[in-house]
Amino acid sequence: MNNLKLKSMLETFYIEDIGDEDLSSTYLFPETAVGEMNLVAKMAGVFCGQQIIEECSSVIDHATEVICHVKDGAPICEGQIIATLKGSVQSLLKSERVMLNLIQRMSGISTATHEVVEEIEGTATKICDTRKTMPGLRMLDKYAVRIGGGFNHRFGLYDAVMLKDNHLAFAGSIKNAVHTVREAIGHTVKIEVEIETEQALREAVEAQADIIMFDNCTPAEIKKWRQVVPASIITEASGMITKETVRDYAHAGVDYISLGYLTHSVKAFDISANLSILESIS
Amino acid sequence: MNNLKLKSMLETFYIEDIGDEDLSSTYLFPETAVGEMNLVAKMAGVFCGQQIIEECSSVIDHATEVICHVKDGAPICEGQIIATLKGSVQSLLKSERVMLNLIQRMSGISTATHEVVEEIEGTATKICDTRKTMPGLRMLDKYAVRIGGGFNHRFGLYDAVMLKDNHLAFAGSIKNAVHTVREAIGHTVKIEVEIETEQALREAVEAQADIIMFDNCTPAEIKKWRQVVPASIITEASGMITKETVRDYAHAGVDYISLGYLTHSVKAFDISANLSILESIS
Amino acid sequence: MNNLKLKSMLETFYIEDIGDEDLSSTYLFPETAVGEMNLVAKMAGVFCGQQIIEECSSVIDHATEVICHVKDGAPICEGQIIATLKGSVQSLLKSERVMLNLIQRMSGISTATHEVVEEIEGTATKICDTRKTMPGLRMLDKYAVRIGGGFNHRFGLYDAVMLKDNHLAFAGSIKNAVHTVREAIGHTVKIEVEIETEQALREAVEAQADIIMFDNCTPAEIKKWRQVVPASIITEASGMITKETVRDYAHAGVDYISLGYLTHSVKAFDISANLSILESIS
Amino acid sequence: MNNLKLKSMLETFYIEDIGDEDLSSTYLFPETAVGEMNLVAKMAGVFCGQQIIEECSSVIDHATEVICHVKDGAPICEGQIIATLKGSVQSLLKSERVMLNLIQRMSGISTATHEVVEEIEGTATKICDTRKTMPGLRMLDKYAVRIGGGFNHRFGLYDAVMLKDNHLAFAGSIKNAVHTVREAIGHTVKIEVEIETEQALREAVEAQADIIMFDNCTPAEIKKWRQVVPASIITEASGMITKETVRDYAHAGVDYISLGYLTHSVKAFDISANLSILESIS
Amino acid sequence: MNNLKLKSMLETFYIEDIGDEDLSSTYLFPETAVGEMNLVAKMAGVFCGQQIIEECSSVIDHATEVICHVKDGAPICEGQIIATLKGSVQSLLKSERVMLNLIQRMSGISTATHEVVEEIEGTATKICDTRKTMPGLRMLDKYAVRIGGGFNHRFGLYDAVMLKDNHLAFAGSIKNAVHTVREAIGHTVKIEVEIETEQALREAVEAQADIIMFDNCTPAEIKKWRQVVPASIITEASGMITKETVRDYAHAGVDYISLGYLTHSVKAFDISANLSILESIS
Amino acid sequence: MNNLKLKSMLETFYIEDIGDEDLSSTYLFPETAVGEMNLVAKMAGVFCGQQIIEECSSVIDHATEVICHVKDGAPICEGQIIATLKGSVQSLLKSERVMLNLIQRMSGISTATHEVVEEIEGTATKICDTRKTMPGLRMLDKYAVRIGGGFNHRFGLYDAVMLKDNHLAFAGSIKNAVHTVREAIGHTVKIEVEIETEQALREAVEAQADIIMFDNCTPAEIKKWRQVVPASIITEASGMITKETVRDYAHAGVDYISLGYLTHSVKAFDISANLSILESIS
Repeated sequence: MNNLKLKSMLETFYIEDIGDEDLSSTYLFPETAVGEMNLVAKMAGVFCGQQIIEECSSVIDHATEVICHVKDGAPICEGQIIATLKGSVQSLLKSERVMLNLIQRMSGISTATHEVVEEIEGTATKICDTRKTMPGLRMLDKYAVRIGGGFNHRFGLYDAVMLKDNHLAFAGSIKNAVHTVREAIGHTVKIEVEIETEQALREAVEAQADIIMFDNCTPAEIKKWRQVVPASIITEASGMITKETVRDYAHAGVDYISLGYLTHSVKAFDISANLSILESIS
Repeated sequence: MNNLKLKSMLETFYIEDIGDEDLSSTYLFPETAVGEMNLVAKMAGVFCGQQIIEECSSVIDHATEVICHVKDGAPICEGQIIATLKGSVQSLLKSERVMLNLIQRMSGISTATHEVVEEIEGTATKICDTRKTMPGLRMLDKYAVRIGGGFNHRFGLYDAVMLKDNHLAFAGSIKNAVHTVREAIGHTVKIEVEIETEQALREAVEAQADIIMFDNCTPAEIKKWRQVVPASIITEASGMITKETVRDYAHAGVDYISLGYLTHSVKAFDISANLSILESIS
Repeated sequence: MNNLKLKSMLETFYIEDIGDEDLSSTYLFPETAVGEMNLVAKMAGVFCGQQIIEECSSVIDHATEVICHVKDGAPICEGQIIATLKGSVQSLLKSERVMLNLIQRMSGISTATHEVVEEIEGTATKICDTRKTMPGLRMLDKYAVRIGGGFNHRFGLYDAVMLKDNHLAFAGSIKNAVHTVREAIGHTVKIEVEIETEQALREAVEAQADIIMFDNCTPAEIKKWRQVVPASIITEASGMITKETVRDYAHAGVDYISLGYLTHSVKAFDISANLSILESIS
Repeated sequence: MNNLKLKSMLETFYIEDIGDEDLSSTYLFPETAVGEMNLVAKMAGVFCGQQIIEECSSVIDHATEVICHVKDGAPICEGQIIATLKGSVQSLLKSERVMLNLIQRMSGISTATHEVVEEIEGTATKICDTRKTMPGLRMLDKYAVRIGGGFNHRFGLYDAVMLKDNHLAFAGSIKNAVHTVREAIGHTVKIEVEIETEQALREAVEAQADIIMFDNCTPAEIKKWRQVVPASIITEASGMITKETVRDYAHAGVDYISLGYLTHSVKAFDISANLSILESIS
Repeated sequence: MNNLKLKSMLETFYIEDIGDEDLSSTYLFPETAVGEMNLVAKMAGVFCGQQIIEECSSVIDHATEVICHVKDGAPICEGQIIATLKGSVQSLLKSERVMLNLIQRMSGISTATHEVVEEIEGTATKICDTRKTMPGLRMLDKYAVRIGGGFNHRFGLYDAVMLKDNHLAFAGSIKNAVHTVREAIGHTVKIEVEIETEQALREAVEAQADIIMFDNCTPAEIKKWRQVVPASIITEASGMITKETVRDYAHAGVDYISLGYLTHSVKAFDISANLSILESIS
Repeated sequence: MNNLKLKSMLETFYIEDIGDEDLSSTYLFPETAVGEMNLVAKMAGVFCGQQIIEECSSVIDHATEVICHVKDGAPICEGQIIATLKGSVQSLLKSERVMLNLIQRMSGISTATHEVVEEIEGTATKICDTRKTMPGLRMLDKYAVRIGGGFNHRFGLYDAVMLKDNHLAFAGSIKNAVHTVREAIGHTVKIEVEIETEQALREAVEAQADIIMFDNCTPAEIKKWRQVVPASIITEASGMITKETVRDYAHAGVDYISLGYLTHSVKAFDISANLSILESIS
């Protein structure tokens, strides 16, 4: 992740949480009080958030020492210590909440992604995300999907073309739509076409879309229809696919399955922060 | 919600999603193409997000007409039209994703809050949130909890004091901790003390904490211990309380139950955007 | 004070003062010229601004060495050296004006606060501020009041409720107003009611306001009326109270006296910066 | 004043004051409640702040109607209505505090400036300000000085050169200092030299400084020394000049007298906001 | 172009140019003075900047009426009126410089692009840009290239992969490099490989790069080597290609020619602003 | 240049270029890979950009070591190494493009300025810039002009007055215009008057303008007319002056010649970045 952008985001997040003053800690702890804070996993999963822990600490207090015991993408079990932070107690307490909120979300995403990746193990299909990320957090959400073993779909409206029913209808035909956009965009941009019927699929193939998305199709439909798609065109399945049905879709032979729930309905990965006060340097 | 702050947030969110250009729509639709977009609930729940729909539309294009058919807090059923937006097709498509991502999260929060509020219906206990909100979105997350029938705990480290185990241990006693902070803060700020034992509870009462939080206590403990708390002190239960156990806690007689999952593990409320292109004004 | 927020403010302030270039120093001093700058009090009072001196220096040039000889809240006399800064002459001259403007204001506030706190010494009454701070500088203004021995009233519209004549009139009665707001806000927020008559006072007591403000009342009225206020409700006097009349109000027995002039009519505390050029490192 | 810059400042100021929500008004007034707010002078002076009233209103709510009865620079008497605002009660109450804080400061500055301008009436001397303005508010502070009949000294380190003792000492001589800078800067920038002795004055004249500042000199010294200054060089007196001594300095014949206190020690001009609720549009 | 982003940029640009006040116009023109400003081409070329003219006017003053007589991409001749703006004289003068600076750059880019596009007319080759745009202005620079008939290469490091000599050397082989990246990135992202030798070209083809760039190759080399590139791989020539040599490269049969000079060495297209003062509305 | 402002600009520029991730380097280079990057001049000229190189490196990665072999303003020849950067390969590649884009523009400006300064060598005339700089980059553009041996005209509308035909026409006469503005502005601000006829020139002299600009006049006209301008008034020639005609203007005896092309039509100075990978620290 772009660290410059991350730092700028964290400054906003910490001002949201701290405001003008941490009323609870400022008056109880002297600036010289030193502590050690362990971040401990309260469940098993795939960790994501090392850069967050390091930057959150540094943004609040350059002097905090951070040791991450676990790398992004590593499996962690309940009770495992993820990281140890040592420094000013005031700083540790100020940095805690935003840090936890972010790594709990990110580890939640990477864990959920990993679960569904395991679900389709042995197939050639890959899992990817969508633009259904939390506004303001897309860089982090998409990073967490990668860490969980998934792949990123486009980052926004600016880096890939997605032609949906409205685009296609307005252009008169899939061919027209693809052609019109291809004429306008640069050669580094791919065009994806959403299809719902076999007829549309054939048109998309003929129009030489770079990627074809089977939208709300059944595994059976996909399995049958994808015979007409040449190897040079990437296929993707999307729409109401769950952890329960994902293996059927993988077996249908699509290259990618995109899952909105990975980022729009995140279950926080439980991590707690245990602080022990070491001493007060007078 | 503070509209000035909301607008500023939405500008950031839309620049994240749109970047320099919507590559898909810019080249397919003329600027004069006009459409109508209906936001339709795909499940039942409690709606939250009217201000979001209005401001998202307005931030992208002042000329978009917005009619919200549902007010914040209203129950909605599957298939119900939440709002109708009419205006430039390019603008409607640009505004769609951020708007949906936000109202799906917010309606998810208000629906989950409402469910748990119903769970304890008939008791005098109230549900409240925590600081476990998504960084950058606290104003929205906390608003959604209110709309669902819940209440807001403190907004950040700046507007209320929460004394936890570390604060108390360092100060030597609960009495010292409360006294030290009370001497320093203004008279508009309340002090909450977390307790885990009956002994600590008695000390907190003696120290005249404004609010006492039963942290990770059982309903039975709370029921027994709260006898020593005078009516002038507000009680709160927190820690690993779920929708399944919440009623037991309410019956234990606490004034407030705070639930982190309302905002840290949000299940998006499914809403789809159906666009129909009306005409092209030449 | 939240250092992250302070740094961000100082960057804005320095860009306001320096613009694209310090035309006077850039062309006269080589980058290698080293100097020592003493900040000297030109009058007696209570100092406030250590964090400002440190962060102003650091924001302009990390290499500047800062020694603060005086801590916030310490009494200083005319001629006393507050701090010694050593580093690049160009950096010292660039950092000077904003630093002085801020610490002169803050020390002015803490000195004026201290004076009025001394005025009521021996009473149980405390002095507090208002929202009449300089826009953009509230965190600093309110910090300076604390350093002078005062207390902070609410920080903004967001962290405490203040019900004034209009709120009360519209709600029909004080009871209705307090009740309506109490039902809506969280349990960490206090409600203050402004009253001007004994009748209103009685209603506010009955409505169980957390704080009652005697607005524009005479000390005699307050002394008489406050008999009806139970110990559990905090009292505050406000409105046209000056250093001359403050003792009478304290004797009337209110818990807090809020004084707008502490922050809306600040007399700068005179501090000068004496620079001596040490050498030029070639 | 640059309106784009003003709007951006006001957004920051209102977010500081309102935060996430105006807890007092949001729950008491329906959005449809309409009110009229009069801004009334509580003392006599010179008004400054029309643009502030208009932009504060507009930034909070475009629909608020604003009528300013008084123009910037007009004399106002106690009890006079400065402006009438009509619109949503919630919006009027949200906009009130920042608006008052700013116009009270600005009218305080313009009134104090006007007083000292009157003090030297009949002389050819002009009053000007310094860089001792409140950080973040320089544009407003300097505008208020102009409205009071004063003039602006340089806006920052970027738009004029001021050579002080350190600059001069380091350069070896006033001549060298002026020469070095003149060689480097553009032809639109003026050079001012601070002098404290007659010898320095003669050197500054010889060096052809554009402006010569008599720093901490007595009126008598200035009167005597300025004989050697040709008409083409502007003279300025500065340093510990008060309203009481300003006339002596004017009689000494300087062109400008700069007064730091106009902006570093502002006495707020008392203005109150009287709101009446008109009706509630259902 | 994303209008939200454009507006935010223009606000920054106007604060850079106007600062606190337009000293020249503020004191000479009453706010009620109305004028008409014609933007006139002083040379022939391809116009670009309609959105700039509209937004610059609107950012400074919503009331300014703007009529653009020329659309982006239209050929214009010397003396032709591009747009007519009518409104406050103060506003017109404030908006002028930034507006002209931008449309002169953008029309300079579109004109230069058009010239080189014409140079290769009749061939199947397309012209594209690079990342050698002016920092802070990439959205505008790349838009202007499109308007001139060119195409956009990647917008930044985030939307396409470009493997250069260092990447390839470190990975051990082109195959390894492409494979490693392909495994990590999403399916919407293309991979381009820079080659300088026939051997490297063959490896890039084998590695199934999406785009192959002939870097600093002669037209003869390209013509010969490209025989081994299948139709499914896009080819691009880059490096020291000028308007004089571009036709030879097109005849060599590459799909795209990227030209850094289009945006790094822009010749401003001369446009003047002629203002006539219509009347003063009293 | 103001470093605080520069850093803030660079953060914006790098977020524009890098976005969320450098897709090419992140997956190929381990974080521990170390490299050395030489910036090499590909042509001869006058270098400008040392502060850019240092700050760009530092903004991306504090640990990068930077050695600048050339100081701003030094002549450089083709093949000369300007600077050597050593550090993380990922960081070097991320920092490269923005750094090059800026120093190529700035060295282009300083080289072009130097060329025209040489053109008029031996005369007393100086070269200066205009406000025709690239929006967002004025500080850098104007710095580069100084480095090339030129001088800066005003930085914006805020630091000097320029009275053009419209101002003069509206005021009724040059005398009125100069008088009106002189009465309003401070004594540190200069007034420049544009004239096109001898009659206007005489009026401007009489009005005691500080600077008179001969706008679109021939060298012959200037030579003749300037006889009436006293030595105390600075003269400037502007309008369609090229490198070819500049010497004639200098011989006409003006003090300054302002050239818009120096900053509105910059030819990038060619600099390449040669990276060698040193080792991978495991």
